[in-house]
Amino acid sequence: MTQDMTNDPLVIFTPSGKRGRIPAGTTVLEAARRLGVDLDSVCGGRGICSKCQVTPMFGDFPKHGVKVAPDALSDWNAVEERYDGKRGLQKGRRLGCQARIQRDVVIDVPASSQVHKQVVRKAATARDIIMDPATRLYYVEVAEPDMHEPTGDLERLRQALRDQWQIEGIRIDLPVLARLQPALRKGKWAVTVALFRGHDEAFERLLDIWPGFYEGRLYGLAIDLGSTTIAAHLCDLRNGSVLASAGVMNPQIRFGEDLMSRVSYAMMNPGGDAEMTRVVREAVNHLARDVAHDAAIDTAQIVETVFVCNPVMHHLLLGIDPVELGQAPFALATSGSVSLEARALGLDALNPAARSYLLPCIAGHVGADAAGVVLAEEPQNSDDLVLIVDVGTNAEIILGNRDRVLACSSPTGPAFEGAQISSGQRAAPGAIEHVEIDPASREPRFKVIGCDLWSDEEGFAQATAATGITGICGSGIIEVVAEMRMAGLLDASGLIGSAEQTGCARMIAEGRTHAYLLHDAGPDGGRITVTQGDIRAIQLAKSALYAGARLLMDEMGVERVDRVVLAGAFGAHISAKHAMVLGMIPDVPLERVFSAGNAAGTGARIALCSVAARAGIERTVGRITKVETAIEPRFQEHFIAANAIPHATDPFPELSRVVQLPDVAFNAGQAGDGSRRRRRRK
Amino acid sequence: MTQDMTNDPLVIFTPSGKRGRIPAGTTVLEAARRLGVDLDSVCGGRGICSKCQVTPMFGDFPKHGVKVAPDALSDWNAVEERYDGKRGLQKGRRLGCQARIQRDVVIDVPASSQVHKQVVRKAATARDIIMDPATRLYYVEVAEPDMHEPTGDLERLRQALRDQWQIEGIRIDLPVLARLQPALRKGKWAVTVALFRGHDEAFERLLDIWPGFYEGRLYGLAIDLGSTTIAAHLCDLRNGSVLASAGVMNPQIRFGEDLMSRVSYAMMNPGGDAEMTRVVREAVNHLARDVAHDAAIDTAQIVETVFVCNPVMHHLLLGIDPVELGQAPFALATSGSVSLEARALGLDALNPAARSYLLPCIAGHVGADAAGVVLAEEPQNSDDLVLIVDVGTNAEIILGNRDRVLACSSPTGPAFEGAQISSGQRAAPGAIEHVEIDPASREPRFKVIGCDLWSDEEGFAQATAATGITGICGSGIIEVVAEMRMAGLLDASGLIGSAEQTGCARMIAEGRTHAYLLHDAGPDGGRITVTQGDIRAIQLAKSALYAGARLLMDEMGVERVDRVVLAGAFGAHISAKHAMVLGMIPDVPLERVFSAGNAAGTGARIALCSVAARAGIERTVGRITKVETAIEPRFQEHFIAANAIPHATDPFPELSRVVQLPDVAFNAGQAGDGSRRRRRRK
Repeated sequence: MTQDMTNDPLVIFTPSGKRGRIPAGTTVLEAARRLGVDLDSVCGGRGICSKCQVTPMFGDFPKHGVKVAPDALSDWNAVEERYDGKRGLQKGRRLGCQARIQRDVVIDVPASSQVHKQVVRKAATARDIIMDPATRLYYVEVAEPDMHEPTGDLERLRQALRDQWQIEGIRIDLPVLARLQPALRKGKWAVTVALFRGHDEAFERLLDIWPGFYEGRLYGLAIDLGSTTIAAHLCDLRNGSVLASAGVMNPQIRFGEDLMSRVSYAMMNPGGDAEMTRVVREAVNHLARDVAHDAAIDTAQIVETVFVCNPVMHHLLLGIDPVELGQAPFALATSGSVSLEARALGLDALNPAARSYLLPCIAGHVGADAAGVVLAEEPQNSDDLVLIVDVGTNAEIILGNRDRVLACSSPTGPAFEGAQISSGQRAAPGAIEHVEIDPASREPRFKVIGCDLWSDEEGFAQATAATGITGICGSGIIEVVAEMRMAGLLDASGLIGSAEQTGCARMIAEGRTHAYLLHDAGPDGGRITVTQGDIRAIQLAKSALYAGARLLMDEMGVERVDRVVLAGAFGAHISAKHAMVLGMIPDVPLERVFSAGNAAGTGARIALCSVAARAGIERTVGRITKVETAIEPRFQEHFIAANAIPHATDPFPELSRVVQLPDVAFNAGQAGDGSRRRRRRK
Repeated sequence: MTQDMTNDPLVIFTPSGKRGRIPAGTTVLEAARRLGVDLDSVCGGRGICSKCQVTPMFGDFPKHGVKVAPDALSDWNAVEERYDGKRGLQKGRRLGCQARIQRDVVIDVPASSQVHKQVVRKAATARDIIMDPATRLYYVEVAEPDMHEPTGDLERLRQALRDQWQIEGIRIDLPVLARLQPALRKGKWAVTVALFRGHDEAFERLLDIWPGFYEGRLYGLAIDLGSTTIAAHLCDLRNGSVLASAGVMNPQIRFGEDLMSRVSYAMMNPGGDAEMTRVVREAVNHLARDVAHDAAIDTAQIVETVFVCNPVMHHLLLGIDPVELGQAPFALATSGSVSLEARALGLDALNPAARSYLLPCIAGHVGADAAGVVLAEEPQNSDDLVLIVDVGTNAEIILGNRDRVLACSSPTGPAFEGAQISSGQRAAPGAIEHVEIDPASREPRFKVIGCDLWSDEEGFAQATAATGITGICGSGIIEVVAEMRMAGLLDASGLIGSAEQTGCARMIAEGRTHAYLLHDAGPDGGRITVTQGDIRAIQLAKSALYAGARLLMDEMGVERVDRVVLAGAFGAHISAKHAMVLGMIPDVPLERVFSAGNAAGTGARIALCSVAARAGIERTVGRITKVETAIEPRFQEHFIAANAIPHATDPFPELSRVVQLPDVAFNAGQAGDGSRRRRRRK
């Protein structure tokens, strides 16, 4: 490349490696545009925004075959001088719109000057998301009105965006239009506009306008709207960083703990759905104000929201009666993604023109939250066969690889969340979250949320004095049941042995069944026990989960999966070993079980940062094979077969690496009403 | 055509004359579609809507070269029988979707079965408008939900519209989406939807939905939003017929009589523009309820509104501060057409999803009302050179033909509307609207609004006893001034002669000037006089109007026009002869002066009935040459030169055919303060 056709200077951009000959006198910004190099600019090259900063490199670059002379770029100019004096330009940096190319040069574009920055999402999977937000700022200079050519101010703004940014087809709502004339005059015919480009629309929407160059930033809210909690993350739409997060209880809980009871409430109470819609929207407004306050920004700077949620939450947020989701065939009002003005959702604590996007639903029981999990975990791009389980009141289960992705929902009930467990509680300080039972002594030790010590370690009593030991949360109940099984206190059918049968004094008779005394706070405190009813509830939940996974494996025609991903806030806290002892998930090597954290929420963040991701997840969801557990006879078969710990139909060769399960069997006649089959939803 | 290639029956449709060979067994509706014949159907051929009624014709048709046998169509079937029993089918009619072609046949499509009916707009110009409404009804049968293919109800509706109507890309607002599921179930998976297709959008909007086949009709409101009055016409969107009309005073009048005083009000009073916006929207809602009540329809059946209005009304309706329109360079916030949800305009007395369309503005002083006039009068399609004058507080003036169209606005002031005239009043019962002065006796006679008799006819006193004779309206003041000039009571400069100079006892001294006593109601009533001040006001107004027209003629490079059209409610009442005596309009043969009535309102009706017309007027407005009178020095020259009656610079050869003006001249020294030049707006 040292012998070239022209005498134009050779320009090489790093880190992209893009290169080409550019006529002398061209600005670095213009050269970047011509060579397709990702160099940011909000002001369009007017030396105002400073987004196009670059670092020219001088000296000998044998790798690139060039020597860069000290005068390769034009001299530091008055605009750069002024900018440096006003705000400071890092040493070695130049403004790309001011520095002109004079001779061969190598120019580095720092990450902060790239539009499509790579945002490292999480260390675990080292996956990146590319910033490609729907809403961006553009600085534009508009022609003044001319009585001889009496076009409107909006028409001249449109023309300027066409000329200066090659943007066609702007739409604008009345309240923003009403602010256009004052903004143009205050800004002396220069304004900054926020333009939203829907991934499925042929035009851009003008969301907001500021006189002159707007120094502020735009933000978005990624919202994980769960049945129990609502979590919101405030993200910077330029770099995807999270500035603030907040969560609140879903206020709909007062209308029903779980989804089906809320659907029932809507069916039984005229206007009940509208009331639930109102309170959840209010809660989102509240969250928006909270995170804006925490991050010290104006709520008007929040121009987008992205929601992930299950189908019932989805319908209630949209103001659609969820009654059809409570009965077969579980028809969604709409399964596609929903893109609309946030104010149509009653969200008034944002920019008045803010937009909302709801990810598509996969099926009547597999919602936009599952789509968020798919967006975050990308089973459709996986070489190995991955089983993704998002555990909640309903478990969403996804199985797939590059060839095919399947999804279903399984009615696990609330046991995994600590509900309908005698000593169960939500995950909160004071709740037992980890349990170990000594196989010899059958004595337990445990840890509670909010304290790093085990219960048999020094200082535990003082450390937990404030919170007390209040109950067992979801991960704790899984561990204690698995530990009881491993310690021989529970047989394969799930029966708890008596003190006599097990030789363990902690076994307490309760009617015709027995319970394990996990903790006794003495006369002033309560007892925390694990009852036969608790075991049955966990058995039902884990059987449902396992049966769903097996159903998908049947559909896929496989007997094993390569990898298991536990998603959801709860999934992050589940011990893989204990889950496998219980038989919650199919058998894989323990090191092939991963926790994805709140994958649905991550999916919301990705969709917030990238319109390409929105288009992508819509295509992917369209291709997912939906399996309806409620009408699959094999689901019932798997469900019944999975009741045992471990269940009878599936050998557990891998588990032998984890633990040897004792061969105990207690008198089945002792089983009390705890074995009553939980009524499945119709 | 008697020798044909195939044995398929020959089908000939009248009145279109379209013909072709169609396989036996094809329905008439399908045959019409294949031959491109305009035959309506809402239900898509299911025998429900009865819109596809046709009249088969039997016997010998030598003109078409066919004989039609009695069995040319299949027998009357059960569906037709049922329909006839239920609603009655006119004798000789068949349902096009049921009758199948068996042999050669001639089929007449009655006007009522055509989608694109020709609606005769007005007898005068015999112009037709073709029905092409933006909103239409479609009956559609939707697939039931399937748990194995869990798409949403909306997605299945979309698919059905694609399959059954070839309609792609439906958008729907949340409140309508919330009604989708109940409607589908109530209609047993059949619904009728109202789809709005914007002429500038790539998708259709689902405005409303009804279970099963909807028997009702859709309506639109054409609204002429004037500074003084607001008029609304309720139109049937299938055939363009006007079901009801209503008008109210513009309630903004309390903030200022004319446009500039309303702009001043907005400038002087914070929130004043919002208040004016509120009251005008309220008035439109009121009108909508009125016309719906008069036509005995549900306001929810009104799905569209089209507005024509001047730029200040346009901005105030949209909620945009009109302050920029009150000062040079008179910049509009937007000059393009505006298409939006009616609820964004606060119009809540319509279908909640109703749409609004505002015609484009031509310039800062030439509004959507002028665009409506252009749409109605089509100067751009005229072979001869037509001057269109819409007289109001501002006169919009349009000059053009096929080659070129020019437009301007001229500040005539309110004199032509009877304001700022000593005995002036709005057109209302009791107002003098026609005047004749006997050239010999100088005695007047007149007619008042609400009475068909002249004042010198028998019974006039009794007939006007109820209203009295209260003043002179706009058309009356034009006539009386012209008559005074013709009777020699006024000289060419506009000076009123004294009783002595004229020998007329009705001349009354008023300070240093004189007035003409038009009517004296005696001691109990008042005197109605025409003062020197009145003459000056009319001279200023007519000079402005004439100067605007001349300016456009200069720009066009012509000395004469072929035709003059007087538009506007006032234009309809102006006597062409008197207008020409006054020198309001350039000289043309009297028979080439036409009244177009409320052409702007007609334009609104056309736009309501045809999206093609909307696209057309937007293109036309873009090509109109705008002339700004305020910055044209020649306007001032023409204005001053046009002051005389007749003015000095332009010979009036045509006028000699109308009337011989007496050669009188009064003492200019007698002119009082009435000659003070009215201050022009800056």
